[in-house]
Amino acid sequence: MSDIRNLALACRDAAQTLFSLDGESKRELLRGMAAALDAHSETILAANARDLQQAAAKGVQGAMLDRLRLDASRVAAIAHAVREIAALPDPVGLVTRQETRPNGLQVERVRIPLGVIAMIYEARPNVTADAAALCLMAGNAVILRGGSEALHSNVAIAQVLRDVLEQRDIPAAALTLIEDLRRETMVELLQLSDIIDLAIPRGGEGLIRFVAEHARVPIIKHYKGVCHLYVDASADEARALNLLVDGKTSRPGVCNALETLLIHRDIAASFLPKVVAALEERGVELRGCERSRTLVPGMRAATEEDYAAEFLDLILAIRVVDDLGAAIGHIQRFGSDHTEVIVTRNDESARRFVQAIRSAVVMVNASSRFSDGGELGLGAEIGISTTRLHAYGPMGAEALTVERFVVRGEGQVRHPSSRLD
Amino acid sequence: MSDIRNLALACRDAAQTLFSLDGESKRELLRGMAAALDAHSETILAANARDLQQAAAKGVQGAMLDRLRLDASRVAAIAHAVREIAALPDPVGLVTRQETRPNGLQVERVRIPLGVIAMIYEARPNVTADAAALCLMAGNAVILRGGSEALHSNVAIAQVLRDVLEQRDIPAAALTLIEDLRRETMVELLQLSDIIDLAIPRGGEGLIRFVAEHARVPIIKHYKGVCHLYVDASADEARALNLLVDGKTSRPGVCNALETLLIHRDIAASFLPKVVAALEERGVELRGCERSRTLVPGMRAATEEDYAAEFLDLILAIRVVDDLGAAIGHIQRFGSDHTEVIVTRNDESARRFVQAIRSAVVMVNASSRFSDGGELGLGAEIGISTTRLHAYGPMGAEALTVERFVVRGEGQVRHPSSRLD
Repeated sequence: MSDIRNLALACRDAAQTLFSLDGESKRELLRGMAAALDAHSETILAANARDLQQAAAKGVQGAMLDRLRLDASRVAAIAHAVREIAALPDPVGLVTRQETRPNGLQVERVRIPLGVIAMIYEARPNVTADAAALCLMAGNAVILRGGSEALHSNVAIAQVLRDVLEQRDIPAAALTLIEDLRRETMVELLQLSDIIDLAIPRGGEGLIRFVAEHARVPIIKHYKGVCHLYVDASADEARALNLLVDGKTSRPGVCNALETLLIHRDIAASFLPKVVAALEERGVELRGCERSRTLVPGMRAATEEDYAAEFLDLILAIRVVDDLGAAIGHIQRFGSDHTEVIVTRNDESARRFVQAIRSAVVMVNASSRFSDGGELGLGAEIGISTTRLHAYGPMGAEALTVERFVVRGEGQVRHPSSRLD
Repeated sequence: MSDIRNLALACRDAAQTLFSLDGESKRELLRGMAAALDAHSETILAANARDLQQAAAKGVQGAMLDRLRLDASRVAAIAHAVREIAALPDPVGLVTRQETRPNGLQVERVRIPLGVIAMIYEARPNVTADAAALCLMAGNAVILRGGSEALHSNVAIAQVLRDVLEQRDIPAAALTLIEDLRRETMVELLQLSDIIDLAIPRGGEGLIRFVAEHARVPIIKHYKGVCHLYVDASADEARALNLLVDGKTSRPGVCNALETLLIHRDIAASFLPKVVAALEERGVELRGCERSRTLVPGMRAATEEDYAAEFLDLILAIRVVDDLGAAIGHIQRFGSDHTEVIVTRNDESARRFVQAIRSAVVMVNASSRFSDGGELGLGAEIGISTTRLHAYGPMGAEALTVERFVVRGEGQVRHPSSRLD
């Protein structure tokens, strides 16, 4: 049997232990992990230094290198995030519905862990602790497969956390970090459909496409956010401008940042100059449709590719639309099912927008930047699902569980002739 | 572009219409479909006669041929089932949670349709109407791919239902039946990951394996049921016998029938002879472990394959176990995550069983045969999921929807410096 299959099988066996762990044991486990991260900060930083050295030698610099870098306060922040997850309500065992059937059967729907979750990521080393803590809090065993740049940091963090598992007589395999980062090994992992209950790819478009193409296990994609702000004819312009500036400029590199502005034609002549003033001052490049360019001479023309793009940068695509229906049509064509905003004072427009838009998060008069598990009340998130199945939008601990049926009777049979007594 | 891709794209466009349909419109639509099935019973029976003729010519007979056969009362039953689905509560638009955040944002979780569901099946022609009605009631467009034996019947039923859609100005593509039944066409369908939100394979092991191997779209498997009944040391023997007879003999060919009996060693000597008496009289063949064979001389020995088998027949595998833990271990090793039963008078045994068993349905002192959407209160079911994601166990209309976020604000921004006013 292959190494990766053996690792995954051990992880599945460990999942059985986690399945029956009560909430207080999991909280105590996570608090122990947070304390251990604090206590082993030096070890983690030493490993991180090796990653930074290798990255620098490869010519990595700027934001990329910064994302990789840990320091004492960042390790403390990782430990703090684990403590916050430990404070969440335990989703496992939650009875979501209860009913007594006419024949007396008591039917309950109860949340249980999914089992084994494989997390495929490429970003900062903090994901190693974050994802592990959230999966464990929901009673799942976890297989982590991070990026090569952060391997030493990831190994050090995982080792600290695994030691804490072992101290509590939980198999360390419950938290398995894959150190063999060859693509063919990832493909093998993604095909273990008898072992892995869910794989979550989180990262760039290339990674997600690769995972989607090779996975034979269920996956929930955390795909791109081509988020739209539609300014209705009835919009409060000052409010719309605040939401646009927040959505586009407060953190342009994240998936809930705005990429496209749609403006009702009746408000365009008044609103567009304000957009130009506010955004050019903040260094945002604007790319517009024909109609918007007659209102803002000299603005670069937007292409079809611009409307489909997740810029993750200080660039905004703009289109003037005839009406709400045209705005909805644009979003249906170019959107990525992530987050869309309408700014309006008209309740009927808001209702129609919410009813027609199928994205994971729909905002009425609020910033797209609130599309985040913490901001929407989940406490923590493992990411934002753009797969319209199981969980859609920000995923917290509860989204790492599933409802099943527990039925209690007093000997009821379905077919009367089965009764012998 | 290929034919199948074009068909699927038209179905996706139609899904947009269904997305915003209100509950009463969907109910009226389904009632119209039920009436049309009744009105066109003759046409459907004529098409079914062609299927039967072809099947007979191919040598199909017995239960297989009977499953294919429709008559006036069976068509009436299909129409009745559609009427029952029309009477279900509309799962779409249901607000499952509501919260006001400290910053005043009103966050709602609201159920929406999945979008486009592909149903892959091979069984009776009634699935064509059942699955279509349940998908439509949950606001989804549906692509149906049935078996070749029932093609004429399926085409006739689908045509009747599509006419009803068109009469209500809903694109008929919302209910698309695939008539090209080549395997390569099914593979193409299963790879349309930009169009299809969920594929549900329902049928024999071969079909499900084929779909799982080729799908690049999300799938929820309706896999086999290797269901266990565990008779605890404290069990009421008469009750255990009723549940065993009901589970094994009331309908042995279905997935919630029992396949394996586990008996605590302390009760085996007393209980096993009663099992033999009750089941042999009903024509059930018993296959047991060494210990059970010392209690029932002449009983055939059970193999590892027997314990893993979904017999779907009057055969029962038996094992005497040392204790509850051994019973749980056996189920973890051989079970298929479908339905397991414990018979006990000991609350602690029941609690431990429920806590350790990860199957979709766990029964305490009730028959496995109740593992069914209708019996557990869902009204109707599209099948029983053995995939521990999204929906686990019987799936009703609600399982064909997903929760998303609707957020209402008054201009809130995430970063204070974004405020210009």
